[in-house]
Amino acid sequence: MFENNQEMRTNLSELGEFGLIDHLTKGFTPKLPSTIKGIGDDAAVLDFKEKQTLVSTDLLVEGVHFDLAYMPLKHLGYKAVMVNVSDIYAMNARATQITVSIAASNRFPVEALEELYAGIELAAKLYNVDVVGGDTTSSTSGLMISITALGEAEKEDVVYRSGAKPNDLLVVTGDLGAAYMGLQILEREKEVFKANPNAQPDLDPYTYLIERQLKPEARKDIPPLLEELEVKPTSMIDISDGLSSEIIHLCKNSQVGANLFEEKIPLDPAVISVCEEFDLDSTTIALSGGEDYELLFSISQDDYDKIKANPNLSIIGHITEEKEGMHLITRASQKLPLIAKGWNSMEGKE
Amino acid sequence: MFENNQEMRTNLSELGEFGLIDHLTKGFTPKLPSTIKGIGDDAAVLDFKEKQTLVSTDLLVEGVHFDLAYMPLKHLGYKAVMVNVSDIYAMNARATQITVSIAASNRFPVEALEELYAGIELAAKLYNVDVVGGDTTSSTSGLMISITALGEAEKEDVVYRSGAKPNDLLVVTGDLGAAYMGLQILEREKEVFKANPNAQPDLDPYTYLIERQLKPEARKDIPPLLEELEVKPTSMIDISDGLSSEIIHLCKNSQVGANLFEEKIPLDPAVISVCEEFDLDSTTIALSGGEDYELLFSISQDDYDKIKANPNLSIIGHITEEKEGMHLITRASQKLPLIAKGWNSMEGKE
Repeated sequence: MFENNQEMRTNLSELGEFGLIDHLTKGFTPKLPSTIKGIGDDAAVLDFKEKQTLVSTDLLVEGVHFDLAYMPLKHLGYKAVMVNVSDIYAMNARATQITVSIAASNRFPVEALEELYAGIELAAKLYNVDVVGGDTTSSTSGLMISITALGEAEKEDVVYRSGAKPNDLLVVTGDLGAAYMGLQILEREKEVFKANPNAQPDLDPYTYLIERQLKPEARKDIPPLLEELEVKPTSMIDISDGLSSEIIHLCKNSQVGANLFEEKIPLDPAVISVCEEFDLDSTTIALSGGEDYELLFSISQDDYDKIKANPNLSIIGHITEEKEGMHLITRASQKLPLIAKGWNSMEGKE
Repeated sequence: MFENNQEMRTNLSELGEFGLIDHLTKGFTPKLPSTIKGIGDDAAVLDFKEKQTLVSTDLLVEGVHFDLAYMPLKHLGYKAVMVNVSDIYAMNARATQITVSIAASNRFPVEALEELYAGIELAAKLYNVDVVGGDTTSSTSGLMISITALGEAEKEDVVYRSGAKPNDLLVVTGDLGAAYMGLQILEREKEVFKANPNAQPDLDPYTYLIERQLKPEARKDIPPLLEELEVKPTSMIDISDGLSSEIIHLCKNSQVGANLFEEKIPLDPAVISVCEEFDLDSTTIALSGGEDYELLFSISQDDYDKIKANPNLSIIGHITEEKEGMHLITRASQKLPLIAKGWNSMEGKE
């Protein structure tokens, strides 16, 4: 990760705090019409006109949320932005601005922070958000990233977790479980490498899974797609922990139950084959793997025709009365209660 | 600070992450009309109508920005909010919402975080801001607080750092140097206490200074006062580092110079007498002490009559052409160049 770190190592203190912020943020020129003033004053100034403003914030701590042995700093910066804008998309809104605060111990040279900011800049460009503020400071140990994302939406477009109604259809974007299986592949290869440093792993069959783990993408495309299809979900959430824990969140917030059909859960063929390789149940992985950053939402049955043919969307179940509870209907027609058992939450992650 | 900590020590892991957030944030019910949805969804939803939105963020790291030996957790929580809303007031705006993210190692029991949140809650109430989001997570070491503040203002009321013009008057609120001298008192008493734990210090004469150090207040009252006086500053900044470094910021952003008159710098009598006690120059303390959280601004000379009699405001100098530079005019009519030499920045604080 730090090739040539002997040759390029600028100590943080050489630049000073203001120098460092200037140095790292010089590429962040505001591009959106809603950004009136970005970095460089006591506060940023934004103008959302008559729209509503969305705000979401996340804190990523080294040793708790990420391990730099697995994750290059550039990917980490990218992911820190992605996680936050994903929360804005989960409100059916457009992400518009972010603020980025970083605390880093002096084991990180300036070049390491440049890598991190390169990832932040790449994500900001891709998700079309302006970086409008932040703080860069030293820490006594480790690296910490705090990002706040802002977004905008017409008042009538905002979708909460709380609007699902009995008989609504439960819909998920993309496919599930790939990020978790990507991590399994990376961990296996690490062990192989330890045992035999000359082994040349063939990771080609696993490209999709590893990419889903290392560079997950938020579903920026879904709010405009829903607008185009003229569908307003009744409730929505992003899948950061795992399908079952997110269904439980939606149902609790909406005071409803749900039936999820195992056969309807969208799985990439690579997930299925790698689950066989690892002797893992692919449904369990989809339910509990987490970090897929797909969107889960409910829609009225009246909207069924509008979404049924869309390759991005899978209908995986339906909403019921609260008293009926939350269940998985297996391929063998068994009815099992849904439990929130994220692998991630077991590891103390978010 | 932690009396009875043997009896009241709930480990963070006993509550779990979601339990902890729920527990700590249950008092944060939105009160402002602009807060449509606070904590509890993927993002908060705000509605600023036709107003502009202000955003400011700050990161406070244990061992870098604060020392828990000096600062009780409740005061720290209070101050973390205050520092951020101060930035919003420095734009001549109203602070409206904050998000709060905390990373704490498990040496902090739940009761310690409750203290911290009690300070946050107190400040939120006093500054009339809603807590609309946040994140509470573990850290591998120490305590870290990241706060983002939002605010609102009519477009035409927002004041930037960049609008000062030659011949404008330079104005400061309140008085300067007290927070720094409060710290000197606290440090001296700590030494006295170490030498003789039975000493009963008489801190009465120092109440104002100690309060300015331990519980500094942001000037929430100034934007409405300016509105009432019908004065719109041409530029404004809050004094977190020290008067001279903030004058330099204003001048650089506005591409102007300034003359500051030593005899006009507002000092509390307690600052003058304690400076004598410590054999320190009170002007130096006002210029470089920092952490006063007063506001520094420039106004057109046409507005002189509107502010001249106000006890909250002191005219301390005037703006000049950029080429004339930035100077302090001493009581002896010497002209000395202004230098940014914050005590705080020397200590690596913000």
